[in-house]
Amino acid sequence: MKKKYKKVNAAILIIGNEILSGRTQDKNVAFISNWLNLKCGISVREVRIIPDLEKIIVKNILELSKNFNYVFTTGGIGPTHDDITAKSISKAFNVKYEYHKEAFKILENYYGKSKFNDGRKKMAKMPKGAKLIYNPSSAAPGFVIKNTFSLPGVPSILNSMIENCKRYLIKGLKIHSKTLNVFTVESNIAKQLEIIQKRYQKFVDIGSYPFFRLGKIGVSIVSRSTSKKKLEKVNQDLIKLVKLKKIKILKI
Amino acid sequence: MKKKYKKVNAAILIIGNEILSGRTQDKNVAFISNWLNLKCGISVREVRIIPDLEKIIVKNILELSKNFNYVFTTGGIGPTHDDITAKSISKAFNVKYEYHKEAFKILENYYGKSKFNDGRKKMAKMPKGAKLIYNPSSAAPGFVIKNTFSLPGVPSILNSMIENCKRYLIKGLKIHSKTLNVFTVESNIAKQLEIIQKRYQKFVDIGSYPFFRLGKIGVSIVSRSTSKKKLEKVNQDLIKLVKLKKIKILKI
Repeated sequence: MKKKYKKVNAAILIIGNEILSGRTQDKNVAFISNWLNLKCGISVREVRIIPDLEKIIVKNILELSKNFNYVFTTGGIGPTHDDITAKSISKAFNVKYEYHKEAFKILENYYGKSKFNDGRKKMAKMPKGAKLIYNPSSAAPGFVIKNTFSLPGVPSILNSMIENCKRYLIKGLKIHSKTLNVFTVESNIAKQLEIIQKRYQKFVDIGSYPFFRLGKIGVSIVSRSTSKKKLEKVNQDLIKLVKLKKIKILKI
Repeated sequence: MKKKYKKVNAAILIIGNEILSGRTQDKNVAFISNWLNLKCGISVREVRIIPDLEKIIVKNILELSKNFNYVFTTGGIGPTHDDITAKSISKAFNVKYEYHKEAFKILENYYGKSKFNDGRKKMAKMPKGAKLIYNPSSAAPGFVIKNTFSLPGVPSILNSMIENCKRYLIKGLKIHSKTLNVFTVESNIAKQLEIIQKRYQKFVDIGSYPFFRLGKIGVSIVSRSTSKKKLEKVNQDLIKLVKLKKIKILKI
């Protein structure tokens, strides 16, 4: 069956030992994924977290950029020895790793000539042909090359830059979601949920997630679809189900 | 050069649309990675977050179980239609997906015969030959098959089960870490950090991570090694460096 809407997808590649080791709690996956979904109608379909090792970055960039419409990397574009994302992406795409003229000017201007040292200059080195993602909070730009976007790892800086990715993205249809929170256990509604899921298989994804709130166990039933109409139908079926089972709905 | 210590590594596979979509903030990566590192001397070398789709789970289980000593999956072992981890792992390893006798008894006992419905019974279905990871908080066990550990997605339940993985793990040497927090910008110490990193290349990993605290910009320099002695040497070199540059150290 032919889908009526265009699905655009993306992968996120988190580069950094500090996330892998558990030292730092990642916050960029949820932020980027929500932003892509809500603002651009793009679904994140895979995330990988990998160490700061050139060979591994190259391998993952090649795989993900081939398999998804877009790739977003975070981390490894700062001034220190462990910041090797730009160099590794150049290698992956077999292009020169060199100073980007505009990035160089932006950084030189920001720091002043006398304080524009080698570490800072490094932040202007990018894959040849890259386009800039401007950075309103700390000057050093991210970049786009082919279908791959490179952003910094610090969440506050990344968040301030994300809107500047938009101009390079083809939008998909927005994915809407509806959540029904009910006070029951998953196994009590598992069979019926499956039936409803099968009924709308092609149009709606239904997920079920247990929660603990107000000292009680509950389930969040989350439906996602590009069609608001189909989503409303699923919601009506779900409400019928919980009424039939005499399950209380949590209103928030 | 031959390393004197045994390195044991692992990958984490987070299975769940709710994490990919950004609806739910993942907390399991940091928890599992810290636990493996501190309690078992095992380094997490890759994390993947993937959707609840059998084909994709199978592909990732095969890749990761081949490339790493251990794989830890989270999510998808509950009672609902979107819980397909156990079935997919059975398929990946080409073994039957069937009731695990002991798991069945545990669950039947926990719920009582009359309330042991199909959804709940499903939680006793596992790859043939799997061993149980006991669950002290909500009965439904996780399982181990080959080098792959399956745990639930709810962090509080996962956390209560993690100690029960230990008996199945071969430990590596513990990785120690030391953090030096200094009030400077990365580019001010980038060159010297690189020199120190090169000096200890084989033994110590040095990472540098900007932070914002007390209204000031700083850098956390994190050194990691299985050798406490080498770590101490790196730390001395780092302290020399910051003294030379007249950089303030943040004491916590």
